[in-house]
Amino acid sequence: MTTILITGGARSGKSKRAETRTRAFPGQPVYIATAEALDGEMEERIARHRARRGSDWIEREVPLDLVPALLATDGGGARLVDCLTLWLSNLMHAERDWEHEVNALAGALPRLKSPAVLVTNEVGLGIVPDNALARSFRDAAGIMNQIIADVADEVEFVVAGLPMKLK
Amino acid sequence: MTTILITGGARSGKSKRAETRTRAFPGQPVYIATAEALDGEMEERIARHRARRGSDWIEREVPLDLVPALLATDGGGARLVDCLTLWLSNLMHAERDWEHEVNALAGALPRLKSPAVLVTNEVGLGIVPDNALARSFRDAAGIMNQIIADVADEVEFVVAGLPMKLK
Amino acid sequence: MTTILITGGARSGKSKRAETRTRAFPGQPVYIATAEALDGEMEERIARHRARRGSDWIEREVPLDLVPALLATDGGGARLVDCLTLWLSNLMHAERDWEHEVNALAGALPRLKSPAVLVTNEVGLGIVPDNALARSFRDAAGIMNQIIADVADEVEFVVAGLPMKLK
Repeated sequence: MTTILITGGARSGKSKRAETRTRAFPGQPVYIATAEALDGEMEERIARHRARRGSDWIEREVPLDLVPALLATDGGGARLVDCLTLWLSNLMHAERDWEHEVNALAGALPRLKSPAVLVTNEVGLGIVPDNALARSFRDAAGIMNQIIADVADEVEFVVAGLPMKLK
Repeated sequence: MTTILITGGARSGKSKRAETRTRAFPGQPVYIATAEALDGEMEERIARHRARRGSDWIEREVPLDLVPALLATDGGGARLVDCLTLWLSNLMHAERDWEHEVNALAGALPRLKSPAVLVTNEVGLGIVPDNALARSFRDAAGIMNQIIADVADEVEFVVAGLPMKLK
Repeated sequence: MTTILITGGARSGKSKRAETRTRAFPGQPVYIATAEALDGEMEERIARHRARRGSDWIEREVPLDLVPALLATDGGGARLVDCLTLWLSNLMHAERDWEHEVNALAGALPRLKSPAVLVTNEVGLGIVPDNALARSFRDAAGIMNQIIADVADEVEFVVAGLPMKLK
């Protein structure tokens, strides 16, 4: 089924755009949050996103096991995964093999029965970061985005709330 | 009247593009600078922009009170505001309620008689900044860009001096 | 002859896209690397790019003297220069007059007989860097990209491996 990748910068309107695309599919939409409410900044953000979405979504908190979550929720409404960049960060912190996990996701997406709308971030358009960890992360994020964009049916790049069609 | 938002990265050619769009309207163009010449780096930049524009512009230096400045110059030629990101930064430093000010601008723009060409920056496409202040600023800048893009008649994203039409 | 500029963020798929565009021209392709294998991180990256390209490329390592290298390899297959941002960084470290060198490149490109495909980076879409050197570099990179884009026949902006046509 359809895979849609929505990419963009911080506060570019990616999540809102992804919600619109997800709601356009029939069935009850499923919100798969890769964020955990670990601090106040994140809690407040999660609450704000939830208020905007409304209460008619099925919600799942999935910091790591994204493919199993997509399979477990398959066959119903469209899934919104928000977001892949945080998932990647969670995988790296948990010392999982992120390349393996990303490739597993890319392999699973085309076989899903229900649509998946995936939000990700562009993090590689600033100056080269000083610290090696940040460089590794932005490299990994760029590689992940290429891999998922390659299997996606549609890819949009959102700037100032406005989508540009990449694919 | 027409509102045009020109967004892009640092040294992407946004200002030059905005000058071209502003000059295309009839009447004497008005340059509204949100920058103040507080240091040598900024002074030199202001002088370079002025040399490029030429001397036929009306010039206003408006670090904070942008809506009053747009109303005071309304009815004549098109206004170029360069740039909203610096205005936002000035508002935050002056401890003004930036969300209120941005929404007031969004409310005022559609009621202006003369065109307004607004320059802004994309600052959210790099790695997450270490310090909380920088994170707050890039969040605010992204939110502002979405709000202004929503009321703008046209939005362009400039990369390497070349505009992409977003709206 | 044809000049193609391929821009984008880190790990956006720029190099791969540039290889595809270079191979589409007749003749043996020439790879002009501006990187020197100064550390392990860079060595590994160079090796990975080489493995992907295959062994049928003529290879040149040109950290500084890009215009002479383009003239010396002119008349044969297309040249891939990877990348201009690193070349700019090399020029600045060697205390060469980068503006003079960039303008010399812009002057030479339209007079070449064989195509040139040039890779560059967008580095100005993050938060303003704290240190003055990083700010100078991102300013220089933005100015260089505008100058080269202006003389290029085609310009593409690559996001998540997918090219957007800017020119």
